[in-house]
Amino acid sequence: MSKNVLVMEGDGIGPEIIREARKVLERVNELDNLDLEFTEAMLGGRAYDKHGHPYPEETREKARAADAILFGSVGGPQWDGKTERHLRPEAGLLDIRSDLDLFANLRPAITFAQLADASPLKPELVAGLDILIVRELTGGIYFGEPRGIRTLENGERQGYNTDVYSESEIRRIGKVAFEAAQKRGKKVCSVDKANVMEVTVLWREVMDELAKDYPDVELTHMYVDNAAMQLVVNPKQFDVIVTGNLFGDILSDEASMLTGSIGMLPSASLNEGNQGFYEPSHGSAPDIAGQNIANPLATIMSAAMMLRYSLGAGAAADRVEAAVSNVLDQGLRTGDIMSEGMTKVSTSEMGDAVVAAL
Amino acid sequence: MSKNVLVMEGDGIGPEIIREARKVLERVNELDNLDLEFTEAMLGGRAYDKHGHPYPEETREKARAADAILFGSVGGPQWDGKTERHLRPEAGLLDIRSDLDLFANLRPAITFAQLADASPLKPELVAGLDILIVRELTGGIYFGEPRGIRTLENGERQGYNTDVYSESEIRRIGKVAFEAAQKRGKKVCSVDKANVMEVTVLWREVMDELAKDYPDVELTHMYVDNAAMQLVVNPKQFDVIVTGNLFGDILSDEASMLTGSIGMLPSASLNEGNQGFYEPSHGSAPDIAGQNIANPLATIMSAAMMLRYSLGAGAAADRVEAAVSNVLDQGLRTGDIMSEGMTKVSTSEMGDAVVAAL
Ligand SMILES: [Mg+2]
Ligand SMILES: [Mg+2]
Repeated sequence: MSKNVLVMEGDGIGPEIIREARKVLERVNELDNLDLEFTEAMLGGRAYDKHGHPYPEETREKARAADAILFGSVGGPQWDGKTERHLRPEAGLLDIRSDLDLFANLRPAITFAQLADASPLKPELVAGLDILIVRELTGGIYFGEPRGIRTLENGERQGYNTDVYSESEIRRIGKVAFEAAQKRGKKVCSVDKANVMEVTVLWREVMDELAKDYPDVELTHMYVDNAAMQLVVNPKQFDVIVTGNLFGDILSDEASMLTGSIGMLPSASLNEGNQGFYEPSHGSAPDIAGQNIANPLATIMSAAMMLRYSLGAGAAADRVEAAVSNVLDQGLRTGDIMSEGMTKVSTSEMGDAVVAAL
Repeated sequence: MSKNVLVMEGDGIGPEIIREARKVLERVNELDNLDLEFTEAMLGGRAYDKHGHPYPEETREKARAADAILFGSVGGPQWDGKTERHLRPEAGLLDIRSDLDLFANLRPAITFAQLADASPLKPELVAGLDILIVRELTGGIYFGEPRGIRTLENGERQGYNTDVYSESEIRRIGKVAFEAAQKRGKKVCSVDKANVMEVTVLWREVMDELAKDYPDVELTHMYVDNAAMQLVVNPKQFDVIVTGNLFGDILSDEASMLTGSIGMLPSASLNEGNQGFYEPSHGSAPDIAGQNIANPLATIMSAAMMLRYSLGAGAAADRVEAAVSNVLDQGLRTGDIMSEGMTKVSTSEMGDAVVAAL
C-alpha cells in the first residue's frame, strides 16, 4: 500500500534543504520499492503571505491525510512583529503539533566520527555518539494548570506553575521510547527527580511497569541533575533517554551542543498513530537563504528518521544514514562544518553526493 | 570585634580535610589580624552516635551563635539504613539549613589553568573558568504546595508539583547574586523560562527591578535550555548566574562537571544575615577516609569563600586562593588530580604547602 509523504519547504533556507532531502527520498523510493507518494503544502511565513494563515486549511487537510510530513524551517525577519502572535510563522508549527497531537519529540544527538573535532568536548568522548532523547511535548509544567501570577494576602505577588502528568500520558511517551530502543541499542534511561518531586515518582512507577512489556530492553533511572552531568562526562553511556517536557527541553538542548554540529541534527515529533512531523533541529537561517550554501544533511537525516519511525522502512533509513557518513568520509563539507583539508561544497552538491552514495 | 567561626569535621574524610583548612585559616588569621575565634561541634553520623541526633542541641546553639560555619562532609556506609530517615547523617545537613534559613546556595565552577586538561571540555574552553552559580535553596518546585499523587475521576492516577516563588523570595536571592557580582566580575545572568512559565515571568520582573539598585552590575537574562547549552559551548561568558532551586540544581551540577576536578570545588549556603555554612562540593569518600590521601583543596577554597562572604575579609580570601594556585604551579597534586610529571602529595602535605604559600 502506498504511503503518503507531505513535503513542506517553509521559510528561509527551507526550500533549498528540502529540495536535497526530497532528491534523496525519491532515490531510495526507487531503490527500495517503498511506494512513497509525495504531496506539497505550505506552512509558516510564506503560507501566511499567500493564505492569510501560517497553517492554512488546505495544509491542515493534507497534513491529517499524510503518513508523514517532512518540513524545512520557519520564520524570518520580514514577519517579525508584523502580525498578531497567533498568525506568526512559528504559530503554524504550534498549530500543526497540537492539531496532530504530536506528543513525542525525538531529538537525536549524533556525532559522526568525521566531525568530532568540532565538539566542545574532547573528541574521544563524542566520536560516534548516538543518543536519542525522547521528550514529552504536550504536557508537564509548560501546559499544566493552575498557573499564573496572583497577589497574596500580605500584598506581595507570587508566580506559580503546575507540573502534572497522568499515568496514560506517561505510558504513551514511555512506549515510544521503548519501541525506539528496540530499533537501536535496547537501553532506555528514564530521567526524573523522583527523590523530590511526586509527579516524577509516578513517572518512575509507570516506566517500571511498562518495562515488563519490553523484556529485550534494559531500563535504568537517573535524576535530572545527574543526567545533566553524565551528558558532559560520559555521553556515550546513553542509548535512549526518555523524560518530561521541561527536563527534555534542557537535556536535548544540552546534548545537541555536545555534538558540535547542529547543522547535522534531525528531529521528529510523533503521535500515537506513529504519524510524524520531521524537521532539522536548526532554524531557517534567513541570512544565508537562497545562496545554495546551507547544510542539507540535518534535513536528509530527518528524512531517514521518517523512513524509520513513520514509514516502516528501517533498512532504507540505514541506507540514507550510511550515505551521509560516506560523503563525510569523502571529505565533502558545507561551510558550517568545513575544516582544513576538506572539500567545500554547495547545498545541491552535498545533496547530489548523498544521492550518488546511496 | 572578634568573629566566631564554628568548625565541624563531620564523617568520612571530614576530619582530615577540615584539619588542613583550619591550619590555613589560623595562619591567615595571624597574617591579616582577622580576630577569628574558633569553636567546634559535631554534625552528621558521628554526632548521632555520640548524642543520638545528627544535629544535636549543643550544635544547634553553637551554630546559631556563629558568624560562619566550616564543615567537612557527612555520611558513610555504617549509618546506611540503620536509623529512621530524620536521624540519618544527611538529615543533619537538612536540619541545619532549615534551622539557619540558609536560602542562598553559592556553587562556584572554577577551573585552575593548571588542571584544565582534566576537563571533558577542550582545555582552551575551561582554563581559567570562574563562574559562581547562586541557587535559591528553600523554595520553588522542591518545596511548593500543593503536591502529591491523586486519582482522577476516570480512575487513573496523576502526579503533580507546584513551582512557586513570591517577590520577596526572588528579591532576597537576587540581592545575594548582585552583591556577589560586585565582589567579582560585575555581571549577573538570571536564568528562567519566562517564555513559558509565569513563575519565572515574575522572577524576571523582580530581577529587572532589583538591577536598578546595582547600577555597577550588568544584568542579562537567559532561558534555562539555552543556559544548559551555553555552559557547554562557551562557559567563560558567565560571571554570576542566579536561578531558582530546580534550574540551579541542574545547572550547578552540569557546571561542576565542566571543571573536570570536583575535588577542587567549594560551596556556601547563606542566610539573610550573611551567616554562612561552607563545605566542599564533594562527599565524605568513606573508602579513602583516614588514609591522609584526600584532596583538602575544596575545603580550603570553602574557607576562602567564608572569609569573603561571611567574614568581610575579601583580601584574606584572595590570599588563600592565590596560595592554592601557587601550590598547583609548584606541581603538587593529591591522587584525584594527579597527572604525569607532577608531584604526588598527601592531604597534610598539601595543607602544609598552602600554609607555606600564604
Ligand atoms: Mg529548547
Ligand atoms: Mg544536584
